Amino acid sequence: MNRKGLVLWLTGLSGAGKTTIAKGLEHELRERGCLVEVLDGDVIRTNLSKGLGFSKEDREINIRRIGFVANLLSRNGVVAIVAAISPYRTARKELRQTIENFIEVYVNASLQVCEERDVKGLYARARAGEIKAFTGIDDLYEEPLNPDIVCYTFEESIQQSVAKVTAKLEELDYISAYQRCEN
Amino acid sequence: MNRKGLVLWLTGLSGAGKTTIAKGLEHELRERGCLVEVLDGDVIRTNLSKGLGFSKEDREINIRRIGFVANLLSRNGVVAIVAAISPYRTARKELRQTIENFIEVYVNASLQVCEERDVKGLYARARAGEIKAFTGIDDLYEEPLNPDIVCYTFEESIQQSVAKVTAKLEELDYISAYQRCEN
Repeated sequence: MNRKGLVLWLTGLSGAGKTTIAKGLEHELRERGCLVEVLDGDVIRTNLSKGLGFSKEDREINIRRIGFVANLLSRNGVVAIVAAISPYRTARKELRQTIENFIEVYVNASLQVCEERDVKGLYARARAGEIKAFTGIDDLYEEPLNPDIVCYTFEESIQQSVAKVTAKLEELDYISAYQRCEN
Repeated sequence: MNRKGLVLWLTGLSGAGKTTIAKGLEHELRERGCLVEVLDGDVIRTNLSKGLGFSKEDREINIRRIGFVANLLSRNGVVAIVAAISPYRTARKELRQTIENFIEVYVNASLQVCEERDVKGLYARARAGEIKAFTGIDDLYEEPLNPDIVCYTFEESIQQSVAKVTAKLEELDYISAYQRCEN
């Protein structure tokens, strides 16, 4: 069993594909014998951050809480996959400084692409003024300057993004190179 | 290495000895090869529950959050030791129902004993009306009716309490009987 813990932090706009990639990675890394937990921004808001809003301060508190939990898991050998917009550079920088094995994955799709997808109908509501402080519309998203991995979900398939991340984890020696059973 | 996860939930009045026993258990269980994390109520309030107060509702939210994190850890093979007043029976019952390996430890010292100790000076401040809704003074503590373990910290030493808990964990087959090295 693979017991090297780390935090895979997926940042990107709403609709960029963070949750989908997180689920793909969860499956792949479990197959490889890792312990895996997905901390999804929406789920975490229910369980850890009810009452917090979307002001800069509240977003930062939310990110710190997720980081606190991800760190507890990773230092006990779990691969904690976080899928959260996490729009601010300073907050992500703080995570990198406090978490030992921190890998930043930029799930990159342009605002236009995300808005055209609009899976949850949130962009339409934000444009209509029904949701305030929506990242990309009337709230800032600060692109990572030096992410460890970038997944271009507009042109890559989920499989390609997942393969890219796992290849990087092999390269960094977090997981062993995969030997598929032939029989 | 021992990889059976569980949640050891220490409940009791402020000053009953929860944190002290938690630290003793942390040391003992690490010695036995367990992965251990202590989730101390005070620390958790800083990291996960800033902004929450001490109303019944806020206390319950706080307990649920700690339970959420403890459960993430225990299902990945960690012994999560929680030291939190957790005054309400219904909240503790909910934990037992949602967490697979849940052990309730009642750290039992009478209000009089805790108030005489008053290590942090909180009882004096509560009696003076400087702290409101203080458990045992003007807020309820509901004693566990069927705790898995009771530590009577008025008459037991820390070592005795720790030994009692670890003996119970051996009995329940969470940890193996200890073989001390003789050389």
